[in-house]
Amino acid sequence: MQRLKMIVAYDGASFSGWQSQANGNTIQDHLERAFAGVSGMDVRVHGSGRTDAGVHALAQTAHADVPQSRLTPERWLSALNASLPPQIRVLVCRRVARTFHARFSAKGKVYRYRIWNAAVLPPFERDRAWHISSELDVRVIERTARVFVGRHDFAGFAANRGAPPRETVRTIRSAKVCCVGDCITIEFEGDGFLYKMVRLMAGAQIRCALGKDSAVQIATNLASPKKNHARLVAPAQGLYLVRVRY
Amino acid sequence: MQRLKMIVAYDGASFSGWQSQANGNTIQDHLERAFAGVSGMDVRVHGSGRTDAGVHALAQTAHADVPQSRLTPERWLSALNASLPPQIRVLVCRRVARTFHARFSAKGKVYRYRIWNAAVLPPFERDRAWHISSELDVRVIERTARVFVGRHDFAGFAANRGAPPRETVRTIRSAKVCCVGDCITIEFEGDGFLYKMVRLMAGAQIRCALGKDSAVQIATNLASPKKNHARLVAPAQGLYLVRVRY
Repeated sequence: MQRLKMIVAYDGASFSGWQSQANGNTIQDHLERAFAGVSGMDVRVHGSGRTDAGVHALAQTAHADVPQSRLTPERWLSALNASLPPQIRVLVCRRVARTFHARFSAKGKVYRYRIWNAAVLPPFERDRAWHISSELDVRVIERTARVFVGRHDFAGFAANRGAPPRETVRTIRSAKVCCVGDCITIEFEGDGFLYKMVRLMAGAQIRCALGKDSAVQIATNLASPKKNHARLVAPAQGLYLVRVRY
Repeated sequence: MQRLKMIVAYDGASFSGWQSQANGNTIQDHLERAFAGVSGMDVRVHGSGRTDAGVHALAQTAHADVPQSRLTPERWLSALNASLPPQIRVLVCRRVARTFHARFSAKGKVYRYRIWNAAVLPPFERDRAWHISSELDVRVIERTARVFVGRHDFAGFAANRGAPPRETVRTIRSAKVCCVGDCITIEFEGDGFLYKMVRLMAGAQIRCALGKDSAVQIATNLASPKKNHARLVAPAQGLYLVRVRY
């Protein structure tokens, strides 16, 4: 067997998220079917982590073990892309050591959240940004972004997926806000992210930008995490997994 | 009656073009249904010109005559967008004099053609660019773009829509080529464009960039138009109507 590392991009709009489901319409399902079609064998694809239904990836990372064969990684890339739907593309495929693991070797991730702040959402931004028509104060979004930077207990910015997570301390290394035309982008780099963490952080920032909450409140919640504060989960379609660091 | 001028953007991927058809799935059909829903009357929508199935618009212009009512143009904009599919958005709506006509008052148009020149087409560019994986020489695309500038008989760069067009002389005011990452954009501004003209011009440029034709051949064809030369129609999904000048 040989291990392949893949960088995968997907438009999440038409899929039920990353992780395999009974409906078969997840990114993992499509990738595993493509591997089975090419190799004639069951191949398990391991991602760096899950993304929810509607969430996009510019560069998700995954690995899979495939039989030794004459297929080079370049041929695997073409063959996989030929059988994947066009909303999922393998951008890079290369052979890696068996010690590499897409999830356990990951050292950090970059996520981007896109907000379209205008009266009308352009058709090309449908399913690709959170449309907010009320005018937002970008300075508030910048100020609140800085509050998240550092090592904090993010229990107050996490949703439960089955059992609550045991360890909720994470480090946000940077939080950048960028404003181009009507598009506001928030980009977080961190050592790891809890379930729905980026969407809860972006949601808290938007609550502040709409005058419903304050940066002080966010700081308080990071200092003494509670889940009973008013929370807003930013919608999935604005979220992009930008890259995974190893 | 009062006349409304609208600027309309659409993602053409899921529609059968601009002009009304029996299937009812054109931009004009959707706009006319939205007008009928809001006003309770049949309203005819006139565009600046047709766009083919799959062709996009950043700012198509249209007009329609609606009954005098308490509805302001701003209210019309919201009401129309509320009933249109999200792939079609009215960006601007304002009242104009009855002498304004979206088609006959037009003085010029800007069209953009997008080419994605890389081994893999990113999922977010699906249906939004022409994917060419063979490496293209951008200098050839720049050189051939300049050949089109000026007043020429474009009969050799037009398709027939029913009867052949009577007048085939057009002026291309500018042709700009822009290259950002893997994306090559060609933008033509002209006083008018024949049927499939931009797609035939872009197709001829790509034939040259692939070494199958030359800028001299394009110039020859503009000087003495023939239709029996080898032609390539660039696919619809790369074409954008950028704006209409009045």
